[in-house]
Amino acid sequence: MTMKTSSAAQLATFAAGLRFDAIPEPVVRFAENLLVDWFGSAVAGHGSRPVETIAHFAQSMGPAEGPSEVLVSRAGTTPYLAALANGAASHVAEQDDVHNGSVFHPATVVFPPAVAVAQALQASGRDLITASVAGYEVGIRVGEFLGRSHYKVFHTTGTAGTLAAAAAVGHLLKLDAAQMLHAFGSAGTQSAGLWEFLRTAADSKQLHTAHAAGAGLMAAYLARDGFTGAADIFTGPQGLAAGMSSDSDPARLTDGLGTRWATAETSFKWHASCRHTHPAADALLTVMAAHGVKAGDIAQVVTHVHQGAIDVLGPVVQPATVHQAKFSMGTVLALAAQHGHAGLTEFDRDYLSAATQALRDKVSMVLDEEVDAVYPRRWIGKVTVTTTDGRTLHGRVDEPKGDPGNTLTRDELTAKALRLAAWSGGAQPAEMQAAIDALWNVASWPRVGRLLGQAA
Amino acid sequence: MTMKTSSAAQLATFAAGLRFDAIPEPVVRFAENLLVDWFGSAVAGHGSRPVETIAHFAQSMGPAEGPSEVLVSRAGTTPYLAALANGAASHVAEQDDVHNGSVFHPATVVFPPAVAVAQALQASGRDLITASVAGYEVGIRVGEFLGRSHYKVFHTTGTAGTLAAAAAVGHLLKLDAAQMLHAFGSAGTQSAGLWEFLRTAADSKQLHTAHAAGAGLMAAYLARDGFTGAADIFTGPQGLAAGMSSDSDPARLTDGLGTRWATAETSFKWHASCRHTHPAADALLTVMAAHGVKAGDIAQVVTHVHQGAIDVLGPVVQPATVHQAKFSMGTVLALAAQHGHAGLTEFDRDYLSAATQALRDKVSMVLDEEVDAVYPRRWIGKVTVTTTDGRTLHGRVDEPKGDPGNTLTRDELTAKALRLAAWSGGAQPAEMQAAIDALWNVASWPRVGRLLGQAA
Repeated sequence: MTMKTSSAAQLATFAAGLRFDAIPEPVVRFAENLLVDWFGSAVAGHGSRPVETIAHFAQSMGPAEGPSEVLVSRAGTTPYLAALANGAASHVAEQDDVHNGSVFHPATVVFPPAVAVAQALQASGRDLITASVAGYEVGIRVGEFLGRSHYKVFHTTGTAGTLAAAAAVGHLLKLDAAQMLHAFGSAGTQSAGLWEFLRTAADSKQLHTAHAAGAGLMAAYLARDGFTGAADIFTGPQGLAAGMSSDSDPARLTDGLGTRWATAETSFKWHASCRHTHPAADALLTVMAAHGVKAGDIAQVVTHVHQGAIDVLGPVVQPATVHQAKFSMGTVLALAAQHGHAGLTEFDRDYLSAATQALRDKVSMVLDEEVDAVYPRRWIGKVTVTTTDGRTLHGRVDEPKGDPGNTLTRDELTAKALRLAAWSGGAQPAEMQAAIDALWNVASWPRVGRLLGQAA
Repeated sequence: MTMKTSSAAQLATFAAGLRFDAIPEPVVRFAENLLVDWFGSAVAGHGSRPVETIAHFAQSMGPAEGPSEVLVSRAGTTPYLAALANGAASHVAEQDDVHNGSVFHPATVVFPPAVAVAQALQASGRDLITASVAGYEVGIRVGEFLGRSHYKVFHTTGTAGTLAAAAAVGHLLKLDAAQMLHAFGSAGTQSAGLWEFLRTAADSKQLHTAHAAGAGLMAAYLARDGFTGAADIFTGPQGLAAGMSSDSDPARLTDGLGTRWATAETSFKWHASCRHTHPAADALLTVMAAHGVKAGDIAQVVTHVHQGAIDVLGPVVQPATVHQAKFSMGTVLALAAQHGHAGLTEFDRDYLSAATQALRDKVSMVLDEEVDAVYPRRWIGKVTVTTTDGRTLHGRVDEPKGDPGNTLTRDELTAKALRLAAWSGGAQPAEMQAAIDALWNVASWPRVGRLLGQAA
């Protein structure tokens, strides 16, 4: 072929052709981390009303049994319907991973369809990892391509998510490059998800991730069976960018394919609060650890922040709900200081405790020129702590905990997943521990089976 | 409530509250015509590769049996998966209905989910009709609201289609007005469908209608179970118009609700060719009937057309494929003159016959000021026919056959549906006749059952 190969075709060729052995070892390990972290978030969806509603719909429209696991109910169904249910489940606790540059949450749209299909095909753990990396690499680049103008109206995780799901499932189905390109066309022409639901705090976020997982999976299955899609759903004159972006950047679609591993740029969430609170919380924990400061030793904390943090968090002085508390800098730092971590359980239990309120009111924010100048490229955390015995201590982190340069250890990821399961009641501690232990060895699995046991 | 009720809420209240007895008798009869016409188009999808691919996917992801009928295969499945399959089937022959003002094909996104759900619920024929009218009224208004800018990039039948499907299914599920509004939010946030597939003649059109039918159905089921959606998915600052239109007209959403019956403005397709050929073909048939002219008597035909017809049809002089022949004014008029109708079967069999080619080359187009001036509001057909015995005859229609002012009779609709079934082989003539005979009495059905028999 003498024609210049389109970005879409290059991306499809990459996604179809990716081989496990071509993925650098650290990226494979990172993908395992992402999988375990996702698993905790999916189990955290147990008991959530919008999640259970979608899971009920999916199960009621499918067979009574099937090879693919609905994690919130332990039911088995077909891969399409399991992808819908688990896609809904994985984003609701807001503890799933995020790729900062694309403002895209990959795990919730990649792993639900990939795991469901791997279970149905009895694919190996290596195939699951490879397919998931394909999904991350594609989805992140599509999110970057669609740009900030897109994100203003569209929920990128819903829109780019169809492509991520199609890439992952397409890889498991062993699509060739031409079929993968057709799958991209069929996925992208189903891309959807509007932010309008935020105005009334409606349930659509769970529908968006379910939809992306299901639509992308369907696109890949159809392509396997000969169904064709647009040759360039990204940059064509009636494609995604034409319809849904005014600042798209086609170069991002193929940026560093095979050399830049966007998968490993993904951030894990550690604290269960607004991201603007994380740098200061981590800086406080750093200085407490370095100087042996306990929560009771703190007289005052001044956080040195960027303007965006003041804009978003400034209005929240006395939070009235647990959701609001996640936007209270004082509450987040108070919980972190007391428990070493501001997680879902700590919020639910202690966000209005006397000790939390007392410590909360000792925290203030001031604009910091250095921090503000590098935001949002970097999220620096700086705090000045005054202790009850009169010391003035300075704490700093250059990347908040969970970002690629300050990522979570496997022990921290295990602990986080266990906490999420305990929080939702989606799995018993012992079975969750066993499931996580097994998942750490996913690359050696001959076949992907159930991740949790049957219903007790 | 003292707030001004939003257009979205008014539309939802109308869709939820519509009662059979409130629909004027002629509109009910018209809806029955639409249902029979849709049925023919759905059966016409039998054997089509893209349709069968989607139907196979839907059936493979569902149970082995179910209450809802997949028309192309006679299988039974759940309503969601039947809606996907039949939504794919109904648009592929391009013989399904169209609402000119909204550039929207209602039948293919309304009846597949409505019939599938009615079968599952054992709803009455009256309930099916009422729900379908709700779907038409909503979908057409949403299409009009989204405007021409939307249609330039988006396939309105795919996007507005999710709302139409949600309204129809929501009515069958007896959603109240608040639930219907939530269903609209969940449907609209899944609206999708890009024209980019046209560039390579890919299969996406069938995916768009399947997607709309399935996503709208899902939105309604979720709303029944308490799932919430955006309060104004239409005009909200991050809603459909914000993301996907630059000339939206909110007044259209509620235009004449309960007094203007948009359902009855729908056009039936008669000839199986590009719409630009229809006015002239009908004018030719009119003059032939009036003066007893046979095909063999024609020496020359000059068609007096609008510029758009010349732009689209002008390049097609010697069509090489049956698809291209549908854009050849000469071929269409030649088939109509010989057979009284240019249908799918006539095209397949005769588009390159010697008689067709000879007659085709006697047809020309000239720009007509009167016709061009009123286009696209009106589609006037004018021809001047010269006969072999030297007569010059003028023919004219002010509305092409199938448009509301020149609609099809029940005999013509029956004949069309029988032809479509014979063309695809989707049903035997006798069983199709029996099914159509039964459908004409749908309003008296106590329960909606299967439309076709089991597989022979």
